[in-house]
Amino acid sequence: MKATFMYGAGDVRVDTVPDPTILEPTDAIIRTVRSCVCGSDLHPYHSMKSSDHGSPMGHEVIGVVEETGSAVNSLRRGELVVSSFTFQDNTCVHCREGFHVSCLHGGFFGGHGIGLQAEYVRVPQADGTLVTVPDTDGTGNGSEELLAGLLSLSDVYLTGLHAATMGQVGPGTTVTVIGDGAVGLSAVLASRQRGAERIILMGRHTARTDLGREFGASDVVAERGEDGINAVRELTGGAGTHVVLEAVGHRPAFEQAVGVIRPGGTISRVGVPQFKEAPLGGPLFLHNITLTGGTAPVRRYLDGAIPQVLSGEISPGRVFDVSMSLAEAPAAYAAMDAREALKVMLVP
Amino acid sequence: MKATFMYGAGDVRVDTVPDPTILEPTDAIIRTVRSCVCGSDLHPYHSMKSSDHGSPMGHEVIGVVEETGSAVNSLRRGELVVSSFTFQDNTCVHCREGFHVSCLHGGFFGGHGIGLQAEYVRVPQADGTLVTVPDTDGTGNGSEELLAGLLSLSDVYLTGLHAATMGQVGPGTTVTVIGDGAVGLSAVLASRQRGAERIILMGRHTARTDLGREFGASDVVAERGEDGINAVRELTGGAGTHVVLEAVGHRPAFEQAVGVIRPGGTISRVGVPQFKEAPLGGPLFLHNITLTGGTAPVRRYLDGAIPQVLSGEISPGRVFDVSMSLAEAPAAYAAMDAREALKVMLVP
Repeated sequence: MKATFMYGAGDVRVDTVPDPTILEPTDAIIRTVRSCVCGSDLHPYHSMKSSDHGSPMGHEVIGVVEETGSAVNSLRRGELVVSSFTFQDNTCVHCREGFHVSCLHGGFFGGHGIGLQAEYVRVPQADGTLVTVPDTDGTGNGSEELLAGLLSLSDVYLTGLHAATMGQVGPGTTVTVIGDGAVGLSAVLASRQRGAERIILMGRHTARTDLGREFGASDVVAERGEDGINAVRELTGGAGTHVVLEAVGHRPAFEQAVGVIRPGGTISRVGVPQFKEAPLGGPLFLHNITLTGGTAPVRRYLDGAIPQVLSGEISPGRVFDVSMSLAEAPAAYAAMDAREALKVMLVP
Repeated sequence: MKATFMYGAGDVRVDTVPDPTILEPTDAIIRTVRSCVCGSDLHPYHSMKSSDHGSPMGHEVIGVVEETGSAVNSLRRGELVVSSFTFQDNTCVHCREGFHVSCLHGGFFGGHGIGLQAEYVRVPQADGTLVTVPDTDGTGNGSEELLAGLLSLSDVYLTGLHAATMGQVGPGTTVTVIGDGAVGLSAVLASRQRGAERIILMGRHTARTDLGREFGASDVVAERGEDGINAVRELTGGAGTHVVLEAVGHRPAFEQAVGVIRPGGTISRVGVPQFKEAPLGGPLFLHNITLTGGTAPVRRYLDGAIPQVLSGEISPGRVFDVSMSLAEAPAAYAAMDAREALKVMLVP
């Protein structure tokens, strides 16, 4: 089969490798219907050391069940399924409390030798990891809009929803979203879904912030740094917003979050931190700022979000603006890196 | 009048200074009934540069209203009142949201030239700062236990309650309290009040942890560092506790908190951070740890706590184990610094 590997910074290749097989009774094999490239895939794209051994890439996929191990109970061959970007048993103490990324028997795709930018995938802990899409005909066919929506539930939309959930966004809350990438835009949509009173999107790529407005942003602030902070302060009568959803992960974005948060407010972050330390005293302590968020336990939200996508209540798949074949994965990375594409869907 | 000043590290003096007078129409003058020394007063006691000008000390007081400015409406001469350790108008946007320490017209006692370890005090924003104790006879008399309980509401108990509140401690939550100082013990009592399922107190001074057990601690862990972390992990089946209340403020205590927190859990801190930066990625991000807490908006909790003290439902004043005269303030600081006293009450 064809599968995507990274051999070093900027060096993505699609290789031909053996098809995966069942290794554990809890495994399933799925045939990929759609996968995609994540903003977080660009971090190694910038920094990975060159190696003769490629690292398997990709952690977002929807697919059709081909085969199940003897201990898999909830899945049938031919069902269309959404995978979360981690695998987990969905039964351990941490899964039961809703933090599946901390599963005692779980792990991250991309790691464990499994990349999801591939034609077939071995899914560990299949019962806890894959969720069946109801009422599908077993072919994996569907409108492009529907497939894009379902694929967005593998990571990006539900990461945005996790940010809003951890930030306790709800009616009456004012929200600043930092970052106009696919996760930031998803956080706007999720905040609107949760009933936020006002959503200020900080981003400077007009095509993206325009989609942000369609997703529910009430205001867009294009300025950065001090100017951006002042603009948000001005929009909020000086007080800042109750919640900031930080979807970037770089230190200036964190500092921007601290700059626009209201006393007693919550910074919820889902951008993977690319900096080591940050000040925890000063204004954070004085003004009772809560810092929350982290790696999204997508599995927690899948059962609720799949029907919303099927019914058309939400269209989170609109963050996919470019579609390429899996063989074009190197070009997909390059396009996202050059910001020519917001998020690229890969068709096997 | 007599008032306490610090002239440098280890150099506390009780000087005779003019009685305070009304400066603003929103001021009140109170006659001190009891004040005390705070653990946070020991930070400058260790580090303050020597100076010819003493800094006024103290931020906790109960007293009797002597005089009110023309704009003060809620207070009458002779009433016994509890002051919060900050002053605030209790009407601005941040006060209304419960974060009085961020009041637009507020400030900290100890600063602004006002120390509360004194015979008389000028209280700015008196309507928003002082809360009358109902059913008192206007003499400021009362049992020592009652006065100690009321004085503990000026800071220490309500700082512990704030930690538990921000940590969302409640029925079903397991809690680790780090620190057996007066704030840590208060956090134990507050967690018990809020219905915590289990409270593990980390501290190694037996007299203090014994009081912690009486306040509601289910377990005491005397070990520190890795050993302490392992002990808490063992008590919780490896998982850690849902909440950690950090009442120390030094970096090892923060690291201990990260070591014993459960995935998806909340570290609520009220120990003033004595370190500049800390890692926000790594386990905090991976395991969705929430970091919250900060300077306690005591005013938010006063109306609820005063009746609890008056009725004897709670006895938070038990953290005062030594009583001295105001003139002995230098000895009070020395006793707390040497850990011979947990918390010293000062009687004018």
